[in-house]
Amino acid sequence: MTTSAPRSYAQAQGETFRQQLFDLIRIPSISTDPQRVGDVRLAAEWIAAELTRVGAEHVAVMPTAGHPVVYGDWLHAGADAPTVLVYGHYDVQPAKIEDGWNTPPFEPVEIDGIIYARGSSDDKGQMFIHIKAFESFLATEGTAPVNFKFIIEGEEEIGSLNLLPFLQAHSALLKADVCVISDTGMRDINQPAITYGLRGLTYMQVDVVGPSRDLHSGGYGGIIHNPALALAQILSKLHNADNSVAVPGFYDDVLALTAAEREELRKLDLNEADIKNDLKITETWGEVGYSLRERIGARPTLEINGLLSGFTEAGAKTVLPAKAMAKVSCRLVANQDPRHIYELVRDYIVSIAPPAVTVEVSLISAGDPAIVDIHTPLMQSAVKAYERGWGNTPIFTREGGSIPVVADFKRILGIDSILMGFGLNTDGAHGPNEHYVSKMFHMGIDTAICLYEELAQN
Amino acid sequence: MTTSAPRSYAQAQGETFRQQLFDLIRIPSISTDPQRVGDVRLAAEWIAAELTRVGAEHVAVMPTAGHPVVYGDWLHAGADAPTVLVYGHYDVQPAKIEDGWNTPPFEPVEIDGIIYARGSSDDKGQMFIHIKAFESFLATEGTAPVNFKFIIEGEEEIGSLNLLPFLQAHSALLKADVCVISDTGMRDINQPAITYGLRGLTYMQVDVVGPSRDLHSGGYGGIIHNPALALAQILSKLHNADNSVAVPGFYDDVLALTAAEREELRKLDLNEADIKNDLKITETWGEVGYSLRERIGARPTLEINGLLSGFTEAGAKTVLPAKAMAKVSCRLVANQDPRHIYELVRDYIVSIAPPAVTVEVSLISAGDPAIVDIHTPLMQSAVKAYERGWGNTPIFTREGGSIPVVADFKRILGIDSILMGFGLNTDGAHGPNEHYVSKMFHMGIDTAICLYEELAQN
Repeated sequence: MTTSAPRSYAQAQGETFRQQLFDLIRIPSISTDPQRVGDVRLAAEWIAAELTRVGAEHVAVMPTAGHPVVYGDWLHAGADAPTVLVYGHYDVQPAKIEDGWNTPPFEPVEIDGIIYARGSSDDKGQMFIHIKAFESFLATEGTAPVNFKFIIEGEEEIGSLNLLPFLQAHSALLKADVCVISDTGMRDINQPAITYGLRGLTYMQVDVVGPSRDLHSGGYGGIIHNPALALAQILSKLHNADNSVAVPGFYDDVLALTAAEREELRKLDLNEADIKNDLKITETWGEVGYSLRERIGARPTLEINGLLSGFTEAGAKTVLPAKAMAKVSCRLVANQDPRHIYELVRDYIVSIAPPAVTVEVSLISAGDPAIVDIHTPLMQSAVKAYERGWGNTPIFTREGGSIPVVADFKRILGIDSILMGFGLNTDGAHGPNEHYVSKMFHMGIDTAICLYEELAQN
Repeated sequence: MTTSAPRSYAQAQGETFRQQLFDLIRIPSISTDPQRVGDVRLAAEWIAAELTRVGAEHVAVMPTAGHPVVYGDWLHAGADAPTVLVYGHYDVQPAKIEDGWNTPPFEPVEIDGIIYARGSSDDKGQMFIHIKAFESFLATEGTAPVNFKFIIEGEEEIGSLNLLPFLQAHSALLKADVCVISDTGMRDINQPAITYGLRGLTYMQVDVVGPSRDLHSGGYGGIIHNPALALAQILSKLHNADNSVAVPGFYDDVLALTAAEREELRKLDLNEADIKNDLKITETWGEVGYSLRERIGARPTLEINGLLSGFTEAGAKTVLPAKAMAKVSCRLVANQDPRHIYELVRDYIVSIAPPAVTVEVSLISAGDPAIVDIHTPLMQSAVKAYERGWGNTPIFTREGGSIPVVADFKRILGIDSILMGFGLNTDGAHGPNEHYVSKMFHMGIDTAICLYEELAQN
């Protein structure tokens, strides 16, 4: 097995690869924004064109009930070679310069080796790594050690609602031996990590409605249950004094951590001082009795993602608002069911809602949690790939984030996913000034090339 | 004493008067909006021009540290005639069509005898009544029964912060025997009301700051005290189980209602069924042990006027927000001091704030509560004016709203205010679709003319 040609090619093409990534990043493919439907489609078409250019076949921008899925394959590695399904997403979180960006979020700039832009890490940068690894094989050897199937979706940031029916409809087309996903992070560039546990997600909206119109707080203050107050009262009852979630039944299906797992996670625990220093907070917070790493990766949570009611501009308006809204989401762990959790949260909120207001809890998105078996040859290939390409042995960890499709791939296609994160936990995904270390993009391509070489040896 | 000429004139000029009011309403003089500074000034200049046109002298748009005060006088009623200071305000609350208006808020339309527009009732319509009454005297008789001083300010909706120094600086100019204010409401067009108690106001902003940037709720959810959650937890502790305000010392300076007052207010209590029907709520709310009217007029309250944190648009964004904000205001009664109440609320909120977040409570505006003696000849003049002009004997009531200058007029100028409301409690001041019954505008002018005739008899 020679590895030098594709790896050398990738190294030589570094600047070109980065400029191509910048072109993709410039398309503001914000999947949650109805005004960006055209840009989301543009990003899908850009990737389809790029896959075709580098040698993929059967490339198609395939429709769903929402944003399209980009498919492309290359199946000439031979009957004995494994088939790898590469999953990624081309959609991004919302970003506006007013959110606190130092530079326009969709105009990538590289400063001191760091690329600043929405999607640079999550997930355009990490996803593009695999397309470039694939290119590096075909451009140098005219072939590749494994068969490739690419499936790049456009709704990951809004819960991948239409991917499940897509997988069900196209399960034959997507048949593969393993799925590879790069959409996770590591704590330190010198300590790569393979994620084996992912949290699920239940994302909800809570709407509290009081009087049928906004009122003058002088004329009505004191006789109407203020919906903003009612909302605060509801939200304050979602956690217990020990910071655990107060929703009855919430923890019933949680798979308890084994002693061995807790021991392993203890070695990888987060550094409290680093977090406090990075985020400028005086103390961390969370469920009593669990370490930081356990709270992020192995325990479910309930977060408030947004609040809106009444007058929110500068100055004063003495309004008694007619309604109040909160975005609330739960990160889930195996074996919690996101739809069942929605029902539990909804029923609890309705049960504690003050009688003078009307409360509605609606489901916005739901994704299953997942755990991948780490004792397989596939996982050993990933370990070796990091050792050769990245230069360090990876650790196995659980992530707080959600990639709901991991559970779907297992259930529908019957395959495991290798979650090879090529980002840093501090890349600022979803926040302002998201960034990606340029060097990691190139180390990622090198490691991905090694991964495909290793998988061919299985 | 003949009254027919001015009253007949006002009746004949009804349509003209209404069109003039519409011109004033079309100026979006939103005092809290920094982008409307020019419009606020335009409204001041419009009133100055109108006062000059109808015969006022010494008319000036006088500067303050904020929006200007319009002054004008007419002092030719003779040495024995009383001098009346007419106070009103030309600024309005914010209004955007997206807030739920059926018609553009600054384009007055009259439908079935009701004028829909921001400021139609509060306070452009009610304030304009006095300018039109003044005009009616001079246009018909070339003189008026009382001396007039007009003081029309542009910051009432943002707490009249610069009026106190203005009164102090110009106390000689503003010397008068009584102040007349029309900026309150009645429950029913057939039951006019004179307000003798007004609530004060302390308007604050609560800012909760957590991590130094917005975070991914997957990567950090469970280890950071979410600022939106912390805010909800704080806000949920501002009231006790009996709906009284939980801030220590909040009620210490409240002047207790006398048995006689409670008896009088009981006669005028609000109709719970009407309120529920009007506002489409299943039940009212408030401090246990007090009637609806007492809760609105004689008891202090604490309201949430606005909430903002994180992601508030349609769809999902799994952000753990870096900060959360609430607008919180207290309606106060005699003898609470708004600045002292601010300190009490601030200290209490800081004392209950969770340790992992930073909380700041800032004062946005403060206004004193007021009580006016109802057993005076001045008040009897007002009663007679309603009987002649409106056709009904007024009741004396306490209002939930705030006109902080009433306390300032008493303290700085040594004069009582007659609060002759010409609006309806249901006019929707501060909310969408504010409106004013056209007939009440004209009955108000008639009653104001009667008031000035009656005051001349004292």
